[in-house]
Parts: sequence; C-alpha cells; structure tokens
Amino acid sequence: MSNPSLGFKYLYLSPDDYAAFPEGTVNATEVVDDGEKRMQLDDIIGQIHGIGVENLRGSGMIAGEQSAAYSDAFTLSYITGRSVGIGAYLCRLGQRNIQMTNGPLILTGYLALNKLLGREVYTSQDQLGGPQVMMPNGVSHMQVEDDQEGVRAILRWLSYVPSNCFTRSPALPSADPISRKIAFKPTKTPYDPRHMIAGTDSSDGSWTGGFFDRGSWTETLADWGKSVVCGRARLGGIPMGVIAVETRLMEQRIPADPANPDSRESVLAQAGQVWFPDSAHKTATAIRDFNNAENLPLIIFANWRGFSGGTRDMYGEILKFGAMIVDELRVYRHPVFVYIPPNGELRGGAWVVVDPTINEAQMEMYADEESRGGILEPPGICEVKFRDKDQKAVMHRLDPVLLELDQDPEENQVDISSREAQLLPMYTQVAHEFADLHDRSGRMLAKGVIRDVVKWEDGRAYFHARLQRRLAMDDLAMEAGTDRTVVEEHLEKLAGEANVDWNTDAAVTGWLQTEADHIVNVMTSLGRETAVEDAIESLSSLDEEALKMVLNRLKSH
Amino acid sequence: MSNPSLGFKYLYLSPDDYAAFPEGTVNATEVVDDGEKRMQLDDIIGQIHGIGVENLRGSGMIAGEQSAAYSDAFTLSYITGRSVGIGAYLCRLGQRNIQMTNGPLILTGYLALNKLLGREVYTSQDQLGGPQVMMPNGVSHMQVEDDQEGVRAILRWLSYVPSNCFTRSPALPSADPISRKIAFKPTKTPYDPRHMIAGTDSSDGSWTGGFFDRGSWTETLADWGKSVVCGRARLGGIPMGVIAVETRLMEQRIPADPANPDSRESVLAQAGQVWFPDSAHKTATAIRDFNNAENLPLIIFANWRGFSGGTRDMYGEILKFGAMIVDELRVYRHPVFVYIPPNGELRGGAWVVVDPTINEAQMEMYADEESRGGILEPPGICEVKFRDKDQKAVMHRLDPVLLELDQDPEENQVDISSREAQLLPMYTQVAHEFADLHDRSGRMLAKGVIRDVVKWEDGRAYFHARLQRRLAMDDLAMEAGTDRTVVEEHLEKLAGEANVDWNTDAAVTGWLQTEADHIVNVMTSLGRETAVEDAIESLSSLDEEALKMVLNRLKSH
Repeated sequence: MSNPSLGFKYLYLSPDDYAAFPEGTVNATEVVDDGEKRMQLDDIIGQIHGIGVENLRGSGMIAGEQSAAYSDAFTLSYITGRSVGIGAYLCRLGQRNIQMTNGPLILTGYLALNKLLGREVYTSQDQLGGPQVMMPNGVSHMQVEDDQEGVRAILRWLSYVPSNCFTRSPALPSADPISRKIAFKPTKTPYDPRHMIAGTDSSDGSWTGGFFDRGSWTETLADWGKSVVCGRARLGGIPMGVIAVETRLMEQRIPADPANPDSRESVLAQAGQVWFPDSAHKTATAIRDFNNAENLPLIIFANWRGFSGGTRDMYGEILKFGAMIVDELRVYRHPVFVYIPPNGELRGGAWVVVDPTINEAQMEMYADEESRGGILEPPGICEVKFRDKDQKAVMHRLDPVLLELDQDPEENQVDISSREAQLLPMYTQVAHEFADLHDRSGRMLAKGVIRDVVKWEDGRAYFHARLQRRLAMDDLAMEAGTDRTVVEEHLEKLAGEANVDWNTDAAVTGWLQTEADHIVNVMTSLGRETAVEDAIESLSSLDEEALKMVLNRLKSH
Repeated sequence: MSNPSLGFKYLYLSPDDYAAFPEGTVNATEVVDDGEKRMQLDDIIGQIHGIGVENLRGSGMIAGEQSAAYSDAFTLSYITGRSVGIGAYLCRLGQRNIQMTNGPLILTGYLALNKLLGREVYTSQDQLGGPQVMMPNGVSHMQVEDDQEGVRAILRWLSYVPSNCFTRSPALPSADPISRKIAFKPTKTPYDPRHMIAGTDSSDGSWTGGFFDRGSWTETLADWGKSVVCGRARLGGIPMGVIAVETRLMEQRIPADPANPDSRESVLAQAGQVWFPDSAHKTATAIRDFNNAENLPLIIFANWRGFSGGTRDMYGEILKFGAMIVDELRVYRHPVFVYIPPNGELRGGAWVVVDPTINEAQMEMYADEESRGGILEPPGICEVKFRDKDQKAVMHRLDPVLLELDQDPEENQVDISSREAQLLPMYTQVAHEFADLHDRSGRMLAKGVIRDVVKWEDGRAYFHARLQRRLAMDDLAMEAGTDRTVVEEHLEKLAGEANVDWNTDAAVTGWLQTEADHIVNVMTSLGRETAVEDAIESLSSLDEEALKMVLNRLKSH
C-alpha cells in the first residue's frame, strides 16, 4: 500500500479527529513522528453497516438459501432486467429461468471488462449474458420478448406445477380424448420429434395428432443441446416431463469471443439419434428439474444409436454428462416410462443409461412393435460375429454350385472366387436380417427387459391407464406412510378376492375408485401397522432406564 | 428390413426345423406360400442367455449400483487397460479414477469410428480416451506410468480414506511438529500455490516448510482447471481436503479434433486468482469427492479476485459451475475452514460462493492480517464511489493553493486546471489507500464475517487445535445421536463449571481428553434423552388403537 514515489505509506487521523469518532469507527495505532502524535489507520470500519464484506456475507446467505430452495421447492426466476453478480448467481442457483430479451445475466459489466482488458472489446451487456448467450448454453430455459409474454410464460409453467412440493399437480380436464389414436407416426427418415409429441398442422389445415393432449406441450431449453428435445405436456390432463430425441442433423453454434481477435463463430454438426456432451447434460438437467418439486411423472421416447465418442466429445466431458443421466434417474421419485417409438432404436451405452434397473421402483421400459434394441446395429454385429470368412464357410455348406466346385478346389479356384463374390451381397443381406431378428420387441419381451410391447397408435390410452394406476398406488402408499411395494402386495390380494384383473391397469384404477372407502380403510390399518412397527423399533433401541422414562411420561398423560 | 432388390423380405424356417428347436427359441408365424407351409420369423430369441438386450439390462443395473455406491461409499477405479462403453461409464460413475498411460477410456473403438466416418481419421484408442484426453478434462484424477506406480497411487489415496463411510480416517503419527512455523510465505507476486501447501526445496537443498505435514500432500485433477489446485494432505496427521488458488497465468489446451480438418489445438490463457468454468467445475467436483465417504475436513485457501465474466466464459456455463460450488458446500458434512492467506484477496462473487453462511453448521472463515476482502478492488470502488469530480471537490476543500485560486475562478481557470492535474495522482493514490483500509482483516473481524484473524506463520498450530476440537465435538454428537449444537450447549456449561476456557480450542480439546469418561457419561445420558424424545414423538403420532397394540406388544415381552 505504500507508494514511495508519492512519498506516503500510511493514512493518519489527528488524535482530536480520532477522538471525535464513536469507538469502533476505525482501528488505529498511536505513533509519534518528529514529536507529533498521530493515529495511524489500520482499518476503517465505518459507522454505517451495509456495504462491504457484510454485504457479501448476506449474499452468501441468500445463495445458500436459494440452493436449498431448489432442492426442496419449486423455484423459477424471471429475468426482466439486468441481473449482476449474485443477482445472476441466484438465477442459476434456482435453476429454472425465463429470460426477457432485454435482461442480461452478467458477472461483470462490459465497461469494467473493457477497462480490465485495456481496450474496447465489448459494446453491450447482451454480448456477455443476453439470451443469445444464455439460451444456447442452457442457463435460460425460455426467452420472452416482453413482460406480458414473460408473465404468460410463468403462468403456463405454473400450470404444470403442484401447489406444494409434497403433492402432484392435479390432472386438468382435457378436451382431447385419451382414446384418440396417435395419427403422426415416427418414420425411418428424419422428422421433427415435436410432431411426435404435440402433433402437427398439415398443409391442408388439418391436424395430425401426437402423443400428448392437443395444445399442452411447452418446450424448454430449446436452443441448448439440440439433439435432445425436452419440455412438459399433458396426457389425459396429467402433466408429465418429456424427453425425446432429434432425428435430424443439428448444429451447435459456439459464438466468437470478442476478447480474442483470432476466434470465429464455430458451427459443429451434430447427428440425429446421438447423445453429445451438451444434449446429455441437457437430458440430466431436465430430469432433475422434473423430479425436484415439480413432481412430474416422466416419459422418455428413447431413440438413440449411442453416445458420440470422437476426440472432440470425449474431451468435451461426455463421460461426465452421460453418467449424470444415470445419477438423476437413480434418485427419481415418480413414475418413469422409457418407450422406444416405432422406427426408433436404442443401442449399447444409450440403453444402459436409461435401463429400468437403474431405479426399479420407478422405471418401466416399453417398446413399439417396430422398434429395435441391442448392443450393436446389424452391420456392426456382423462385422464382429459373422465376417466374410464365416459367410463363405456357410456358402460352401449350402450352395449347390460351390459344393460341386469344391470337388476339385485347386482346379476350380477362379470359379469358386467368382461364385463367392456373386453370393456375398445376398449372404450379407441375409446375415443383417438374421442379426436384426435378434433386436426386435418380441425378443425384448421374451428376455424380460421391457414390461410390454405397446403399439404407438394406442400409446395415449395405454400409458394414461398405466400412469393413473401408478399414481393411485403412489398416493395410497403416501397415505399409508409406507413403501409402494408393501401397498401393492396388500392390494393385489384384495383385488384377487374382488375378482379384479391385477394385470389390467384400467380395471385396477376403476376398482380403486369404486372401492375407495374400503381401500382407504385398509390403507389406514396398514398405516397403523407401520406406525406400530416404527414405534416398537424406536422403543427397542432404548436401554432399561430410558424405557422407564418413556413409560413414566406416558403415565403422566 | 425387406430388400426388394435382392428379392427377399423375410427369413423362414421349415416346419420341421422349427419343431426341432425348443419352444421359445424363435417367434414365428405360419404362412402358406404357393402351397408350401413355412414358419416366417418374427424374432430370434436364441437358446443361450447372455448377449444382447439382457446384457444391456445387466449393464444398466451395475451403472445404477455404481452411481449409488459413489454417494454411499468410497469408490476408486484404476484403469489399467482399455475400458470400453459401460466399462468407461462405470469409471466415471464411481468418479475417482487413476489412469494408467496405456489404459484408454473409450465409448467406441477408433476403427469403428473410422468406418462410421468413412475415412482414416483416428490412428489409436489413446487419441480418444488416453490420459492426454482424460487428464485435461478432469475425468481422470491421476495418471501413472505402470501398474506398480498405479498400486502405489491407490495405496497412497487409501491412506487418506476411512475404513468405512461412517467414520473418519484416523490421524497418522506425524514427524512434522504441529508447532512448526510456516516458513514459505505467499507473496504479492505470483507463486506456485503448491509451495504454500507442501513447502518447497530451496536451491541450497534446504526445505522451506508449507502449511501441511512434510510429505503428506497428494494432488489430484492436476491437468484440469489449472487456475485451482486441489488434493489431500495431513495437518498434525489428520487428513484434510485442500483447495488452493493458482496465482500465475495458466494455459488451457483444447486438443484439435481429428474428425474436423479445420480444427487446430487452441490455447486459452487463464489469469491467476480468477475462477474459470473449468476451475469452478473442478472446485465443486473436489468438494463433492472429499465430502462423499472420504469424510474429510476441508480447507480452502481463498484467494480469488472473482469469476471470469467475458463472453467466452459466460457462454462456457460459468454460472452453472460457480453455482455448483454453493450446492456442494451447502451439503458438506464435515468441518470447512475458508482462509484468506497473506497477500490474498477475496472479492465479490468469489466471496459469496464460499461464505460460511452457506452452511453455518460446518463452515468457518478466517483471514491473515495481510489479506483483503471486499466487493470491488480499490481502483474499482473509487471508479464508482469517488470519481475524479469527487476528488476535485475535495481538493477545492483542502488545498491552500486551490482555495486561493478559487477567489477568482474565472480569472484563474488555467491555473486551477493545472493545479488539479498536478494533485490528481496523489489524491487518487490516497483514495485507493482509503478504500483499501475498508478491506482489511480488522474490518472483517469487526463485522463478524470472519471468526478470527490468523497469522499465516502460526496457521499449523491454530488450525490443528481448531480441527481437533471440531472433530471431537462431531464425534461426541455422533455418540449422543444428536445435533452438534445441542452437544456444544451442554459441554459449554460443563466446561464453565470446570473452569475450562471455552474459547481456547487446545484447552477444550485437552479437557475433553482428560475428562473423557465423565463426558462420555454425560453424552450417554444426553443420548438417552434424545432417544426418549424420539420414542415419545413416535408414540404421539399413534391413534388410540395403535397405542393399545404397542402396549400389548410391550407387555408380551
């Protein structure tokens, strides 16, 4: 702090000035310099409390509280104006953000940055943290143009959210019948997965229906990790979290860095049906948002050929973000349906990170008749298990021409090669077909890795019935204060006595509704048993003296 | 699956072949074609269980288990050979990794990628997931050259880890006395923070001691997020997690992407004392590793001027990773000391994310006498609060020459400007000094934002005594099965009765040791009270019928 060139080292107060301040305003040490008594300043505390480290402490406290709030309750920030430093951090700590076009999220203002850099690098706050930065990096979930649109977006989001973190959002009445067949069918060729989710308007003005209730779909994080699509929608009025897969080729745009004159905007191509670091991170983030206090059941329309494993994406921490999907699914507390849609496929590592064994209490897997699942795609598996030489061995076993030529292989060497070459495309094709027959829904069902084969067009009715049943069971388990598996055990017995088909979701749900009073009674007594067991366990951990204390306390009541 | 050009659509079995397979080997549909009865294949299930979707299901299960294992227990993977797909994911799901030079972590082999890309892009697996990729991106924590070094690294890591996840690692005997003064002193000029942590050998062969016990420091994640340094070390034999700040200019190297001919290796400069997206992510990751089952107390040598807020890093999701630091500190279950070292400073957002109010039960903040803390640095705050015009106003109030010239301001305009210009450097310097006096440890203590001012050279003895006391309290609280604050309340009373100075850590720890039998008795009775309260609470939630059931069960014992 000393500045010899300017000739001073310390600041001082005269003893009189020092005495004039209330105690604790400054810390100072008495020095005598050339016979003059001075108070050399060590610290200035000041008389007004509020700006400085005490302010940072307050900011730390709200940061901690906001972090806790996200894990316990529904948090949503609307960024309607410039939000700086802790203001920006609070938005991220609450995770869910709607950003207005003119509300940048920044850490340091652009003028201060220019000063730091010693040149005019930045020309606006928006360059640093406007929606053009915060939408493509997934900090903001939605962008709105003005406050009216902002409030509309908030209200729409709230329509999927329960009134408190212990309940589920109620089913809203839906004009779109649950019995409606799904008209839009996912194709082998690339398509917009939003059409599968929400339907699409045809050029003739007619509507081709999708999976969810008409008009109920709201997308979030649309500009980030575009090879995955996520949002919220309703099925028969029940809100769900939705994750689907982009099948088209997408682009990731990384903006140029104004502070680095050599940098240019770069555009990276991202293939459809593949998880990249950003879209894997997006998937995990969306799952966490749905789970934390939104209490949404989740459906994943799984259609991934795998994770991108080139140098760029391996360096880009794809292993971290892929693993995060497992971490988030493992702790999911609401029903999760993983469904491979028609012409969809689920391979290798992509299957692994959404397999229901990650969280057996909540997750169930389904597949359409025309879907595929397996480790490698047919050409890949044939490369490993049924190469050219294996195919040629089969030709020599089956083909009458080759069997004839094999009588004198040395003499017929040229003819044999030519016949083999002629047969190879056909044999390869058959080999691929043979391999593909191992990847179909029938095998998935036979191996018990999916719960059911569900035809896409019937998906609405099927999953609505299943969801109603699962949620009813969750509600009863909460009522009984016990595990869902215990509740299900009891109810299965009861259903059997009442001749209700336990394997038909709609029948079970209907029975739960008509027999509601009786079943709630059963749950109450089940709840009582659980409470008694808990109490006994709590008492059994006590030593004799403590047990006496409890009994005395009970007697005194 | 049909291929009209080759003229086939399905594969068939003859009825005889079909009948020869055990039931369930294939799913097939009987068709009659030109009078010939055939079994048209729908699915091949096969007779051997093990490869295919059932394998993926098994992989999903171990993925879920490994994810759970990391959150419950100590997990560490040693990658001694190629680890592919789920093999690579398991390593990341367990988080802590030691990678051997010849053990790449990959998702897809390089030959398969070349096939997919249609050209010879990659020449080795190492390009995809060798240590040259996995060390700089922080998937691997350490790199070793061979298995002997690998086993040595595992054993060394285990030396910091408790025998199970419910306990702490024991203090090892240390030859380095805790009373040793710390000889290495952090300077105003950039230095290697490892010297501050571990000491350094001087050119004359002598050792300049650092904070921790000599030879006890092990760094992890060294090649990732280099503006932060993290690892484990011992203080008086007690293992701690350590986070420190790089003060030198560092480089982040992003490798070229072989699949993109336009890409080049890029080298980004990262200033010292600043958090970047990678080093913020690294900080949060290290905190989580220390907390999860390693059960390490943590010390953060806090010395950050702030977060990097330019376009590159705002786009690079710095808000996400900075917020993650708060999220991880909030759930930390062991003592955390945040200490601003000499010539260190902690500003704005960087202070906010490590403020002890984030987790008051565990975190405490300290500062060296010669450290600084505040919102902005002195030149920054003067830019806002005491600009040139404010300084000139003061000149006109204090400077005798200006007071004289101000008698006729119009006449003396030139002289006034010249005098102002002459005085300005001096006034600015004094203003900076004035501002700086607000940022010192004395003010931090007066405002209650730090617990104590600790002289760096005395740090070993101070923090060792504090740590022993905190850990002893944690142990007693665990013994009593209750909150540490409750335990502390009781003990403070007891200590008062025994004339033990509650504010002197060493005295309290000594007393806890000499009076151990008595104190354990007190804790046992405190534990009994807690258990009785729990039992009463458990009973009070019961209705009358349930209470009767409990009493009957008790009688029958």
